[in-house]
Order: sequence, then C-alpha cells, then structure tokens
Amino acid sequence: MTALNESQILEKLQDLPHWTFEDGRLHRKLEFKDFKSCFAFMTLIAFEAEAQKHHPDWYNVYNRLLIQLSTHDAGGITENDFTLAHTIEKLYG
Amino acid sequence: MTALNESQILEKLQDLPHWTFEDGRLHRKLEFKDFKSCFAFMTLIAFEAEAQKHHPDWYNVYNRLLIQLSTHDAGGITENDFTLAHTIEKLYG
Repeated sequence: MTALNESQILEKLQDLPHWTFEDGRLHRKLEFKDFKSCFAFMTLIAFEAEAQKHHPDWYNVYNRLLIQLSTHDAGGITENDFTLAHTIEKLYG
Repeated sequence: MTALNESQILEKLQDLPHWTFEDGRLHRKLEFKDFKSCFAFMTLIAFEAEAQKHHPDWYNVYNRLLIQLSTHDAGGITENDFTLAHTIEKLYG
C-alpha cells in the first residue's frame, strides 16, 4: 500500500462528506445517545477493523467518539483508510 | 462527589503505582499483544464503567491504550475515579 498524495485524498473525501483531512489523518467525529450506544458502535467497528487488518486510532469520551485513520506503515493515507472509512459510514448509516 | 485536592490525590496514588496525575487527570498506559486483546480488555472496562456510572476518557491505537480518568461534573478528581482505577487494575492483574 502506497500513501496517496493530497489531491488524491481530497478527491476521495468528496464521497465522505462527514470526514476531514487533519494532521495527516482522516477524521470523523460521532456522537451517540450515551456511552453504551457509543461503545456498541465501537465494537462493530472493532470487528470490521480486525477483518480488514486495519485499525482506527480513536478517542472516546462518554457518548463521543473521534476516529482518526492513517496507515502507520505507509506514513500517510492509503486506500485501506478509505475502505475502513466507508465501512464505518455504512455501519453508522 | 467533591473534587479531591492535590495532596489527597497524590496520597491515594501511592496505592496505584502504574498511575500518574497529569493535566488534571489520572493516567494509565497499557499495552497488549494485539488489537483484539486490547479491545477485549476495553470491553471488560466498559461493562464495569457502565455499572459504576463512571466512564473513562480513553485513546486506543492498535495494541496500546491510554486511559484518562476525571470527574467532569466535579471539575477534578473524585473518589469515583479512584474506584474505577482500582477496578481497572484488578481486571488487568
């Protein structure tokens, strides 16, 4: 997997309106009714991430979740990040 | 629940050698074999946190977990944070 350049990233982000490109990572903020709902959603993502062998960096505070995607090995954003981002949107949708 | 003062916090931390007091929160860093092990442990904590009605702020990157405890409503550290910290150590031990 090779890192995408910025124009490739911005083009691909057009299909992901809730995602932003910040500090070299794809960001998504989500909010839920409460902690249980948030953690239940994290669990869904965890199984998909494990299946894709590609995992989010994420920060959870009660009902709020910040997801940050990048490919550590490639030192940037790769197709793997976009695949996981689309999976997360499908789960959320 | 009232916030503890710094000397109370530091005294109580003596029973929690792996925890530090940083930026107004109790910090604990944990490392696991892989993502699955890390997330499995997060799930154990999630159930306990929900039972205690007190939840961690936490950041997960693959097999690493940073836990940050504070009591948002009290604007500081309370007994609830120490209760949860001890629970986490018991689960980890």
